[in-house]
Amino acid sequence: EVDSDKYNVGQKKAAVCMTCHGTEGISNIDIYPNLQGQKQAYLVTTLKAYQRRQRSGGLALVMYEQADNLTEQDMQDISYFFSNVTNESAAH
Amino acid sequence: EVDSDKYNVGQKKAAVCMTCHGTEGISNIDIYPNLQGQKQAYLVTTLKAYQRRQRSGGLALVMYEQADNLTEQDMQDISYFFSNVTNESAAH
Repeated sequence: EVDSDKYNVGQKKAAVCMTCHGTEGISNIDIYPNLQGQKQAYLVTTLKAYQRRQRSGGLALVMYEQADNLTEQDMQDISYFFSNVTNESAAH
Repeated sequence: EVDSDKYNVGQKKAAVCMTCHGTEGISNIDIYPNLQGQKQAYLVTTLKAYQRRQRSGGLALVMYEQADNLTEQDMQDISYFFSNVTNESAAH
């Protein structure tokens, strides 16, 4: 069962991510990953990897800027949102 | 429309990936990413990032071994499969 408060907090925090990853976590460019339904722990791990510069090349630079602004709680909230968003739920 | 020959070739090549990422690209461990429905070009880019050691830390080591064995065609085929697999299609 999705915690709607947590979902809404994450949705707001994820606004900037949606530019590339889509409002429902389906990206609009083929080399940008879809995030919809992704494992929450994997998303958090990935954001931390960018923060620790464990990913380089390609568009990693773009993600450094994004990840550097995030607290642990932000990462959890944003990941919770993308992990639970569906094409329908995003419309509310 | 999914090219079933290409899909079948990719499914066979993806056998080893399924151990962690699941037969339908839904992983069974929270820090392993789901691959089902992911963007094909993103998956290829990611495999190349491991081949180029542009990702480190965590389970990157596991992925180095996997990526190092793959040709460009292997990466395309495996990515085509995971990009197109659904919970139903995998059963055939």
